[in-house]
Amino acid sequence: MGEVAFSSGISNGSVNNGVNGQSHSLNGYRKSCWYEEEIEEDLRWCFALNSILHTGASQYQDIALLDTKPFGKALVIVGKLQSAETDEFIYHECLVHPALLHHPNPKNVFIMGGGEGSTARELLRHKTIDKVLMCDIDEEAVNFCKSYLVVNKEAFCDLRLEVIINDARGELEAREENYDVIVGDLADPIDGGPCYKLYTKSFYEFTVKPKLKQGGIFVTQAGPAGIFSHKEVFSCIYNTLRQVFKYVVPYSAHIPSHADIWGWVMASDSPIDLSAEELDLRMKQRILGENRYLDGKTFSSSSTLSKTVRNSLDNETHVYTEEAARFIHGHGKHA
Amino acid sequence: MGEVAFSSGISNGSVNNGVNGQSHSLNGYRKSCWYEEEIEEDLRWCFALNSILHTGASQYQDIALLDTKPFGKALVIVGKLQSAETDEFIYHECLVHPALLHHPNPKNVFIMGGGEGSTARELLRHKTIDKVLMCDIDEEAVNFCKSYLVVNKEAFCDLRLEVIINDARGELEAREENYDVIVGDLADPIDGGPCYKLYTKSFYEFTVKPKLKQGGIFVTQAGPAGIFSHKEVFSCIYNTLRQVFKYVVPYSAHIPSHADIWGWVMASDSPIDLSAEELDLRMKQRILGENRYLDGKTFSSSSTLSKTVRNSLDNETHVYTEEAARFIHGHGKHA
Amino acid sequence: MGEVAFSSGISNGSVNNGVNGQSHSLNGYRKSCWYEEEIEEDLRWCFALNSILHTGASQYQDIALLDTKPFGKALVIVGKLQSAETDEFIYHECLVHPALLHHPNPKNVFIMGGGEGSTARELLRHKTIDKVLMCDIDEEAVNFCKSYLVVNKEAFCDLRLEVIINDARGELEAREENYDVIVGDLADPIDGGPCYKLYTKSFYEFTVKPKLKQGGIFVTQAGPAGIFSHKEVFSCIYNTLRQVFKYVVPYSAHIPSHADIWGWVMASDSPIDLSAEELDLRMKQRILGENRYLDGKTFSSSSTLSKTVRNSLDNETHVYTEEAARFIHGHGKHA
Amino acid sequence: MGEVAFSSGISNGSVNNGVNGQSHSLNGYRKSCWYEEEIEEDLRWCFALNSILHTGASQYQDIALLDTKPFGKALVIVGKLQSAETDEFIYHECLVHPALLHHPNPKNVFIMGGGEGSTARELLRHKTIDKVLMCDIDEEAVNFCKSYLVVNKEAFCDLRLEVIINDARGELEAREENYDVIVGDLADPIDGGPCYKLYTKSFYEFTVKPKLKQGGIFVTQAGPAGIFSHKEVFSCIYNTLRQVFKYVVPYSAHIPSHADIWGWVMASDSPIDLSAEELDLRMKQRILGENRYLDGKTFSSSSTLSKTVRNSLDNETHVYTEEAARFIHGHGKHA
Repeated sequence: MGEVAFSSGISNGSVNNGVNGQSHSLNGYRKSCWYEEEIEEDLRWCFALNSILHTGASQYQDIALLDTKPFGKALVIVGKLQSAETDEFIYHECLVHPALLHHPNPKNVFIMGGGEGSTARELLRHKTIDKVLMCDIDEEAVNFCKSYLVVNKEAFCDLRLEVIINDARGELEAREENYDVIVGDLADPIDGGPCYKLYTKSFYEFTVKPKLKQGGIFVTQAGPAGIFSHKEVFSCIYNTLRQVFKYVVPYSAHIPSHADIWGWVMASDSPIDLSAEELDLRMKQRILGENRYLDGKTFSSSSTLSKTVRNSLDNETHVYTEEAARFIHGHGKHA
Repeated sequence: MGEVAFSSGISNGSVNNGVNGQSHSLNGYRKSCWYEEEIEEDLRWCFALNSILHTGASQYQDIALLDTKPFGKALVIVGKLQSAETDEFIYHECLVHPALLHHPNPKNVFIMGGGEGSTARELLRHKTIDKVLMCDIDEEAVNFCKSYLVVNKEAFCDLRLEVIINDARGELEAREENYDVIVGDLADPIDGGPCYKLYTKSFYEFTVKPKLKQGGIFVTQAGPAGIFSHKEVFSCIYNTLRQVFKYVVPYSAHIPSHADIWGWVMASDSPIDLSAEELDLRMKQRILGENRYLDGKTFSSSSTLSKTVRNSLDNETHVYTEEAARFIHGHGKHA
Repeated sequence: MGEVAFSSGISNGSVNNGVNGQSHSLNGYRKSCWYEEEIEEDLRWCFALNSILHTGASQYQDIALLDTKPFGKALVIVGKLQSAETDEFIYHECLVHPALLHHPNPKNVFIMGGGEGSTARELLRHKTIDKVLMCDIDEEAVNFCKSYLVVNKEAFCDLRLEVIINDARGELEAREENYDVIVGDLADPIDGGPCYKLYTKSFYEFTVKPKLKQGGIFVTQAGPAGIFSHKEVFSCIYNTLRQVFKYVVPYSAHIPSHADIWGWVMASDSPIDLSAEELDLRMKQRILGENRYLDGKTFSSSSTLSKTVRNSLDNETHVYTEEAARFIHGHGKHA
Repeated sequence: MGEVAFSSGISNGSVNNGVNGQSHSLNGYRKSCWYEEEIEEDLRWCFALNSILHTGASQYQDIALLDTKPFGKALVIVGKLQSAETDEFIYHECLVHPALLHHPNPKNVFIMGGGEGSTARELLRHKTIDKVLMCDIDEEAVNFCKSYLVVNKEAFCDLRLEVIINDARGELEAREENYDVIVGDLADPIDGGPCYKLYTKSFYEFTVKPKLKQGGIFVTQAGPAGIFSHKEVFSCIYNTLRQVFKYVVPYSAHIPSHADIWGWVMASDSPIDLSAEELDLRMKQRILGENRYLDGKTFSSSSTLSKTVRNSLDNETHVYTEEAARFIHGHGKHA
């Protein structure tokens, strides 16, 4: 006990002022500052910090931009990592490109959520795109990202992007136009959570599907898809979508900063079944710049789920409905 | 596994985007960032962070100013907490006032180290003071503190203060004048450490003592003084000083941010034995403003050590010498 | 990311199987296991673990005996450190001996709580003692301590000790005998907490005081007494007791495993004012074995509080009453 | 500071003795104990502990069996998680079954390392197997696993398994028989590490390959294979093997307890290219019981690496050689 080094301020001629004479590396103090995420009550994931760049709060949530050693700049909302500089490209390439590539000629896209701007950034790389509508409810959070996420500056300035502050359902229903692709970039469908209604069968059936043009594709992030975590929401989102659409394709990828596999689901009434080679060809023709993560083979691997996950998805019976939501309380465990 | 909440940026209409629907307090994310100090290899002390205010590096050491929740702004050097806003007054009042009050009329003071500025600040509260020399070897660190420690701004501007960038021993020996009080505000005397030589018997005998005026008092910080930690350096500093000076007074106080009791030792060839009442009287007469921690009774309690510590000090036989230093290696354990 | 070392079990010829070739000390893995206490929401205190010796649960609480590296065996109840092998003697010597020594001839003692057994152990060292009643409400917890706390085995077997499982108030009121000393070894008086009623003015006035013999002394643990923590309960316990007793003596000591100063209060209608010398003399005459922490001078220092704490106690106006308790909710902040 | 709850042992009638009246769940204290792994210097992965079941030490390394909340029983060697109850099946099914299934009729297998027993367990599920030789250098570690890993008890008792305590290279070279499959279940090839020599081109060329029968297959674990971690050793093991064998197949899978993707490489001079359907068929015919993770499609996905990793493997030029090893020091960075 008590080997606290203390030297009232700056030591005289001191390189090392540890009481025990232990040598500290010159930037040892940096590793003294940590971001700690409670992934579960009994599981933590901790990143050494360089600095706390910005903190802010909206009417909905607290938000912070941290500079972490292992994953670069990290956007944290209400104590949960949303997106990290070094690997957000995996999430956003997976969310955006498979749907746009499977579409013959995507011109206009509606993003539900997506205020970080990265989803829009990936969409705007497609030469076919005329118009992207991003509809996020949290104005302060959108402004926070606009101001601080340098990587999305250009996207936020792109004239093809329109940012709307509104509830996604209301906005979708109010607008008359239909879309080639609708992208769900929302929080997970926790019962009682804010986004639950945007994952239900009736929302998909009566709001999303009617707003897709002929041959249109809906794609949504679908929560963790790991061997232990895919039953939380991934399998139910998949099962809900296959009640509504003819073709439904689940896929997943590992996101290191999230310490898990992540999942997405595409859905359409037109077939979604391009070969790896065709995907590669379309990428070359349509996408500006080179993808860092996704190509044809990667998508082919991503959309071939492991035995365990595949079986769970096949056998999933739960469907998200507004009614179900009404009767389920507590921690949002849905089955 | 895998209940990572992820919503590619800002959720739509989301106050709570945790996968489990667990409610986070609105400033929950702040408690996700921690400063962690390894007090010993098997003991850690962790403060929630508001922000990392400034970081810098000198030729000697890395330095950071953190904004911590439990202890306010904290100065951290090479991964070790040096001083925290909410309780540095305890350390600095204890270092400075007992020696100055026991001196009949202290006019000029030499500080070895002290670059943080707080020691100077407390000294300059004494109306009798004409001149304070602060001699610290680390110019960048002094500049860092000058720039960022608002609480010491006034002290750094006081015309009675002269800041010298040099090795304390060289400076003391080079100067011709003598001092009423010499204050040691240095890192602990770890064998092989940078300050070891400034705690040896020969340094005290041949450098410090000759530079004290008649009736002069030397005081030094003396490391942790807790029931388990006082043998690290406190008892040896005490024992070394009593080889050189006629009167030696050890005392200690709890510093919450250091999770331990801290120690100081005063030494002189004139008696150091004022009553609590006399100390209180001199405080009123000589010190501008009111002490937050120290008064006569507090000093009387502080200088009455507990049985365990008293016995260790009485029985300590180790004396810091340059010779000893040469033969002791490793972790600086001196006995 | 991902430098996880993994070698499906036992490596072949491997002393070091870290991916980065970092050398681990041979018992490095031990420091991988930690006990972490949230002292406050924004302050943590963490001990490396050797092992988790025993865990149990009573109808009232969970209980565990951990083997920690920095503080030896540690008793943890509901996630809070109660007592650690290496320094519990400080707490228990301070709780027991000042009251017994100030009493001219203590023969019978009532302990409210104290199921750990250490309070009884210290009491039974007094040669004058005929009878100790320990009244704790939690039978399983008492049995847990009886079984596992080797240091108190002898005390639990002492024929002068009677252990009663009951509520302390009910037991005190039901019994006809009076006591030389009553010891409060209970959880802190949190509003709404289980022990609140055992810290109120009316309890002291109508239950405790009438059960003390002529010249009897009451002593109670009084919560943290550090410069930042003494207003939580220490100052209020002190103030409540001085409403009821003529002589009230607060004192405190640093307990390293608790990362804070701890407080106790003695109260009596007879004067409590022995000199350090008289205390030392009585210790020699009456106590078997030697104290490790407490002697006359230590008590004199302990009962001379620092300026800050002394002023708070002098100025405290809050009195614990059952009425107050009824109207105060939430986090138990009592003022 | 200082809201430490303390009640000298068992509180009286206390369910909650936190100073702040914060309610702790009844098993709150369990979450106070954590296993913490430093995945990298700036990245930590922490599991709540139920208990520390066994600890031991061999001449080579320290070893512990922990009971963790998120991943069940976990084998930890020198501070690094080796294998966790809930997901070791992923690692061991991936290590063993692809090689055995691609072999037309595997009868005898040599395991380098593998002392945990799980690799043998999976091998022994194959009906074709006559003989498994497990050659591990650490006898105490093997005995530790034999005693405590209940899941492998049966395998350790199987008469077809022979456990040899020796260096794998020496053993392979000393024995006259050849093998259908050789399995490398060793620590990663860190320069200067104990297993480096068992990953070099010359070892593969002059020791492994000559000991494979006609049509024989070599398979080895190949370290982390995540998007950020695959260049540590995975790409080099792949590249080294393709210098020696005609057909080399790298594949990978996510292991949640390791917070990363893991990699393996198969190599042979006979083609390795069964379809998913053929693999499924052979599994049914040859393997007792059902795989939990691996089937034909899963292997097909596992062996289709993502764009990033595929490109790195294609472009890798480093080859592990004994010479290289001799000249590379320090942290085992191999390029």
